[in-house]
Amino acid sequence: MRFTSESTSPDGTTERDFVHDGVPGVLWTPAGTPTGLVLSAHGGGQHKRAPGIAARAARCTAAGLAVVTLDAPGHGDRPRTADDERFATEIRSRITSGQDAGALVADYNALQAARAIPEWRSVLDALPATGDTVGFWGVSMGSALGIPLVAAEPRISTAVFGLIGATGPLVGAAETITASVRFLLQWDDQLVARDAGLAMFDAFATRQKSLHANPGGHGEVPEHELADAIAFLAG
Amino acid sequence: MRFTSESTSPDGTTERDFVHDGVPGVLWTPAGTPTGLVLSAHGGGQHKRAPGIAARAARCTAAGLAVVTLDAPGHGDRPRTADDERFATEIRSRITSGQDAGALVADYNALQAARAIPEWRSVLDALPATGDTVGFWGVSMGSALGIPLVAAEPRISTAVFGLIGATGPLVGAAETITASVRFLLQWDDQLVARDAGLAMFDAFATRQKSLHANPGGHGEVPEHELADAIAFLAG
Repeated sequence: MRFTSESTSPDGTTERDFVHDGVPGVLWTPAGTPTGLVLSAHGGGQHKRAPGIAARAARCTAAGLAVVTLDAPGHGDRPRTADDERFATEIRSRITSGQDAGALVADYNALQAARAIPEWRSVLDALPATGDTVGFWGVSMGSALGIPLVAAEPRISTAVFGLIGATGPLVGAAETITASVRFLLQWDDQLVARDAGLAMFDAFATRQKSLHANPGGHGEVPEHELADAIAFLAG
Repeated sequence: MRFTSESTSPDGTTERDFVHDGVPGVLWTPAGTPTGLVLSAHGGGQHKRAPGIAARAARCTAAGLAVVTLDAPGHGDRPRTADDERFATEIRSRITSGQDAGALVADYNALQAARAIPEWRSVLDALPATGDTVGFWGVSMGSALGIPLVAAEPRISTAVFGLIGATGPLVGAAETITASVRFLLQWDDQLVARDAGLAMFDAFATRQKSLHANPGGHGEVPEHELADAIAFLAG
């Protein structure tokens, strides 16, 4: 892990860019000793410094948690493969023409998960000490890679997922998850059918799971759920 | 409103029994000036001092809220009518013989609501000052009367409902509710079909509504949801 820049804000939060095995990421650490670490995965079309990811990091550090995020394969500062280009073009074309892009998004998400999971696990191995607990927070495409990541990674004990519908592989992974799960569902999600979201929540094996559903579309998770997710991750 | 007894606990909470228009109730007030009032309605077969109701009152007063509860018609210290006896016998008989008691419970709940709503409104008129806001908390039969009560009563701005399925009258009432709503759903509720609970949540007109669903049966709402409901009611 090679740190390439470091800055400290007036509240004592330190922000460090890094590259690890060619994957660019950011590590934010709060003033003082962090109580735990949150792996924060962005959604499709976003990147490691997207506004929602930066705001999530600020909430985490304010609660005493360190946060690490990565550019997903084909996103942010990373090169796009021919597959990335093809999926991006076709998904955009289906959405703009009013067709259902769900199956194509699920296929792309599965490709993303296969590439991203080993990267996240390797980053977790390489990070400096950041407290005793590891949580995960990623919705939409972030959950598509997060659900199999949490299933594979025993160090992660708490996870915020959501905005994702059940698929065979995701259900299979969820059925092995024993970490505590918070699942966010948007009642009027234009990208995830309500039943598919409910089926995804249903699949998690853990008894320590809660579904929080709110009115609004895919991008409209209300402010109070973000504050609540922090309290959940901070334990 | 006639107060019949008063006691104060070491933490400063005052508990007063009262009778109002023949309806027995309890008013708990916290040490100091309450910030608001919670109308707390018990479930079917329970009463004003059932363990869950007393525990809820203790949580509310610890958060600075006053709490009032009433014995529902045919419950606690109140006489049972022939209708109450008939419903209680038939509902018990259907449940013990493994039949679906849902429609009968819904009929009984509608009868309860018709009797209880004017009682609650009259108590709200008669109570001494208890802060600036009025909330409601009642699940199961407590929601069956609470949903039409909150629809009819503009003084109530926040409500915790749950453990109840959609019926025509409840959906009609919910479609006029603009108060903020927290809806608790138990994922494995043996008394409320999951789809009926989800349809009930769907019906509330307010955009300020959240569904919280957790694994477990009708009586197994987890501890963390009770703490969370207090935070919601305390604003």
